[in-house]
Amino acid sequence: MSGEFERIARFLAPLADDRPEALGLSDDAAVLRSPGVGSYVTTLDTMVEGVHYLPDDPPELVARKLLRVNLSDLAAMGAEPYGYLLSLCLPRERDDTWLAAFCQGLREDQEIFGIGLLGGDSVSTQGSAVLSLCAIGLGEEEKLFRRSGAQVGDLLFVSGTIGDGALGLAVRRQEFLWLAFEERDALARRYQLPEPRLALAAALRGHVTAAIDVSDGLLADAGHVAETSGVAIEISGPRVPLSKAAESVLAEDPEQFPSLLGGGDDYELLFTASVEARQAVLTAAEASATPVTEIGSIAAGKGVSLLDRAGKAISVDRKGWTHV
Amino acid sequence: MSGEFERIARFLAPLADDRPEALGLSDDAAVLRSPGVGSYVTTLDTMVEGVHYLPDDPPELVARKLLRVNLSDLAAMGAEPYGYLLSLCLPRERDDTWLAAFCQGLREDQEIFGIGLLGGDSVSTQGSAVLSLCAIGLGEEEKLFRRSGAQVGDLLFVSGTIGDGALGLAVRRQEFLWLAFEERDALARRYQLPEPRLALAAALRGHVTAAIDVSDGLLADAGHVAETSGVAIEISGPRVPLSKAAESVLAEDPEQFPSLLGGGDDYELLFTASVEARQAVLTAAEASATPVTEIGSIAAGKGVSLLDRAGKAISVDRKGWTHV
Repeated sequence: MSGEFERIARFLAPLADDRPEALGLSDDAAVLRSPGVGSYVTTLDTMVEGVHYLPDDPPELVARKLLRVNLSDLAAMGAEPYGYLLSLCLPRERDDTWLAAFCQGLREDQEIFGIGLLGGDSVSTQGSAVLSLCAIGLGEEEKLFRRSGAQVGDLLFVSGTIGDGALGLAVRRQEFLWLAFEERDALARRYQLPEPRLALAAALRGHVTAAIDVSDGLLADAGHVAETSGVAIEISGPRVPLSKAAESVLAEDPEQFPSLLGGGDDYELLFTASVEARQAVLTAAEASATPVTEIGSIAAGKGVSLLDRAGKAISVDRKGWTHV
Repeated sequence: MSGEFERIARFLAPLADDRPEALGLSDDAAVLRSPGVGSYVTTLDTMVEGVHYLPDDPPELVARKLLRVNLSDLAAMGAEPYGYLLSLCLPRERDDTWLAAFCQGLREDQEIFGIGLLGGDSVSTQGSAVLSLCAIGLGEEEKLFRRSGAQVGDLLFVSGTIGDGALGLAVRRQEFLWLAFEERDALARRYQLPEPRLALAAALRGHVTAAIDVSDGLLADAGHVAETSGVAIEISGPRVPLSKAAESVLAEDPEQFPSLLGGGDDYELLFTASVEARQAVLTAAEASATPVTEIGSIAAGKGVSLLDRAGKAISVDRKGWTHV
């Protein structure tokens, strides 16, 4: 692998080309001009090879996932993406081909999300690759979403479908070999390339009382909202939106249901809104062409309950569940 | 080791206690209010266990070094520290005692530098520990230092002493066993606990044409300034300030000189200023109680030359040198 300076000049500096704040990646830090009336929103998330992605995942997709899990945090705050800093810690023997493909993935997503690289660093390790990305967003503070705002009586909504991230990881680990190729492919794609719900978040501004992105699992993340807001959350199991592939899995093995709700990596937006805001939420979903489903409600108390069709509690025992 | 959520609540959340921007570390991102007329300055630096610090370095000092190498980047920009995000990637078997001591180190430096934890994450790895820190600073854009501003005829200055970082690492690796205990101890301390030159940087505002911190080595970092500014830099070897311990090493083995100038980890401020600003620089040094030495000058051309007492070029062959 080429040296740090050559690597930065050859692969990373071009990603910062049209961002004056990056100072050509040739200074000690990036300079972010004052956003005027708004606030900067910052998040820092790390992916470890063999833990958060698989060593044979294509480097383009690893890069895009790293960027997107951080953009998903910005979406969960209702912020708009502005730029990012990147820290690459790669094994010494990792070749430049991997890095070139990784940077190509970043370039593709930079264009999709209208952002650029602002700074960071590149080091080598004798251990596993560790990739950290600090995403910077913009938003007006009083309009940003918080986990703490859910009110008793509010409704609970979620975007997209739940459980595909966990199933996609299982597929990448050679489980569910009996699924149709298209379904396996769709699930793997969901695991490798999440879709940060930025357009939905933008359309929802002003209509949401609390929000989070589903990274730890639907039940665990609902638990974070319940705890931070000081409320109880009731989720209707039958209403949780599932993909066709997930339904195929459940048709074969209904016992997989808890692992769909407890598994992470969905990066869907889970949020609460008042009953009065229900129509505004549905309009925002349509305006942003993002499927949104009402899956439960907020009650007094604490913790998360999963209810069956008759409104009776379903017992769930999953890693995600223990955090509630 | 305890789980991620428990770890964050128990060890990290207290470090964010008095920072409302951190939202109690219970949201997806931190919110930085608009700095008004100023700009945010951001940098992201990573340390790998076994590469940037030694596995038996005390965790308190590892934490403080991680924070300080990033604060040193802010000093090199002339920015004031504001806060930081932290990404911890620790081996699964790393116990909570290590983490508690690490966080105690952060707490000590938070008090010294008047900053707080704003966000980040915590993950585990099967490989080496990898610690990333994103430091955020504040400054008025037109007063920030750049690497690109050195002018032909300017003078070159450096703070503190050079080479102690490299010697300190050697001492920690059981070299220079013949040195006096106090000298060995002072060198190891310089390697483990660098001093970001924030007070000097603040006092120098308005008087500097270019600046960088000495992290790659004096010659390599002078090379970065020369390249970015499009000038040549001449450094007088005999004028480079050395500690007593470094002088003891050179008295025994003069061949060590190139490795002092080529080794990194000094975190001193290397900067240029016009001849007219010389007195202002010396006044700033005195006001901030920071030793500053004039070690060379800027000429037309490119690259870095090291000159002997007679003004003749000294040939240096070191890793740092190859970047020039």
